[in-house]
Amino acid sequence: MGKPVAIQGIKGSFHYQVAKEYFNSNQSVLECMSFDSTVDSLINGTSDYSIIALENSIAGFIIPNYALIDSNDLEISGEYYLDIQHHLMALPDQSIKDIIEVQSHPMALLQCKTFLKRFPHIKLVEAKDTAAIAKDIRDQNLKGIAAIASQRAAELFNLEILGYSIQSIKHNETRFAIVKRKGNIGNARTMDKASLKFVLGHKRGSLATMLNVMSDCKLNLTKIQSIPIIDVPWKYAFFVDVTFDNTEDYLKAKSILMIMAEQFKVLGEYKNARL
Amino acid sequence: MGKPVAIQGIKGSFHYQVAKEYFNSNQSVLECMSFDSTVDSLINGTSDYSIIALENSIAGFIIPNYALIDSNDLEISGEYYLDIQHHLMALPDQSIKDIIEVQSHPMALLQCKTFLKRFPHIKLVEAKDTAAIAKDIRDQNLKGIAAIASQRAAELFNLEILGYSIQSIKHNETRFAIVKRKGNIGNARTMDKASLKFVLGHKRGSLATMLNVMSDCKLNLTKIQSIPIIDVPWKYAFFVDVTFDNTEDYLKAKSILMIMAEQFKVLGEYKNARL
Repeated sequence: MGKPVAIQGIKGSFHYQVAKEYFNSNQSVLECMSFDSTVDSLINGTSDYSIIALENSIAGFIIPNYALIDSNDLEISGEYYLDIQHHLMALPDQSIKDIIEVQSHPMALLQCKTFLKRFPHIKLVEAKDTAAIAKDIRDQNLKGIAAIASQRAAELFNLEILGYSIQSIKHNETRFAIVKRKGNIGNARTMDKASLKFVLGHKRGSLATMLNVMSDCKLNLTKIQSIPIIDVPWKYAFFVDVTFDNTEDYLKAKSILMIMAEQFKVLGEYKNARL
Repeated sequence: MGKPVAIQGIKGSFHYQVAKEYFNSNQSVLECMSFDSTVDSLINGTSDYSIIALENSIAGFIIPNYALIDSNDLEISGEYYLDIQHHLMALPDQSIKDIIEVQSHPMALLQCKTFLKRFPHIKLVEAKDTAAIAKDIRDQNLKGIAAIASQRAAELFNLEILGYSIQSIKHNETRFAIVKRKGNIGNARTMDKASLKFVLGHKRGSLATMLNVMSDCKLNLTKIQSIPIIDVPWKYAFFVDVTFDNTEDYLKAKSILMIMAEQFKVLGEYKNARL
């Protein structure tokens, strides 16, 4: 693969880590400042793949990112799970007493607030990107300022870790999708998982009927989320993930569900990354 | 009701608006700087009710707020829907050309980015609270700075609206819960909606079986969200909202579901705010 993989954030971000681990450590990346611009790079062909966070075990589904995949007619070609560990890092040869300010993404600050409460002398400052702060600290030689970011960011920008895994909930697994243009040269058909979106009218039991079909066809539901459709009261879209042992079972279920739902769309068929 | 209602944010915030509209316009409020501290005020008895945003039509469920209600054993005693309209406001007698900086909550800036792109000379600055900026502009007489906030904030702080409803998606409905301590003196039993949480093992068809019971007992599902349980692979919690015409039907379903699920909890039984 000659083209870079588009990631949200800069080198050292969690999306960067996923690109390196899912593809390989030599994979080049295109640093993007928003999820929107990773999608732009797919559409204009600058990249063939983009890494997009879909959900995490603390905050749940990241709905705007599902909408991005859905509305731009992209396709999920794979998934990757990363256990997000937040470390406190600063320029070498400082102790936590020397730190007067911690900068990070609001979500990272929130997840580490119990740890940070023990150091009331430290000012907390919200910033855009976890890795970008680490880079700034190195580039601008900022003493007294710490970042909360990944181990990889500490390595890349040569910072010293003052606190390991400082987030309150020790396992914060985030699920990332590897996204491509629809119909692009795809992976081998080793699929055993699919992400589906369908729309149902507000008829009692309509969702139960759909789930019965999935169950009869031996699909396992691993995720379900309803979303009211804006401007259409009482009509819901459902985002559902299923796993299966047998492709035939899945294809059979798909052909039935397609007829039953008002709208039915496959967002991706890919390899389940979790055993 | 003598006690103030705890709201996240200050007077002029969207939570403030909900307190005024759900209770009455004379209702006093307790301004809290986080959802956590609204919950603290319930627990220590400073307030009997708190207003907590649960979901919006753009971003979906606000999972941490569900977790807050669930883990502190609080109860949803009512709901309220508010169509969030973002207005651009500043001190009087300025035009948009005089504005050099717009401050607001990151979510508000995101929702208004298409509008703001038309004014590339304006710097965008993230801030904590939409109404707090409006207050700062008035208190500190900040010329050249605009806030994105509610109509009520403009009225309260006597600012002039330079752009009405500048968000990209015109209807951004947010659902708020009115939350109280469990067992607190409740509303009359005019309930026709319930918020449930239950846990299911990863057995194929287990969710379908639950939904079949709901459907058989004439419950209408208005919301469903699965959440993986941290540290317990393949076990899921489901947050489900149902409406019903007949309380007997609901009580029957509840007694069956309680036996079927591994864990079953009623987060609230209340009056449906939507026709």
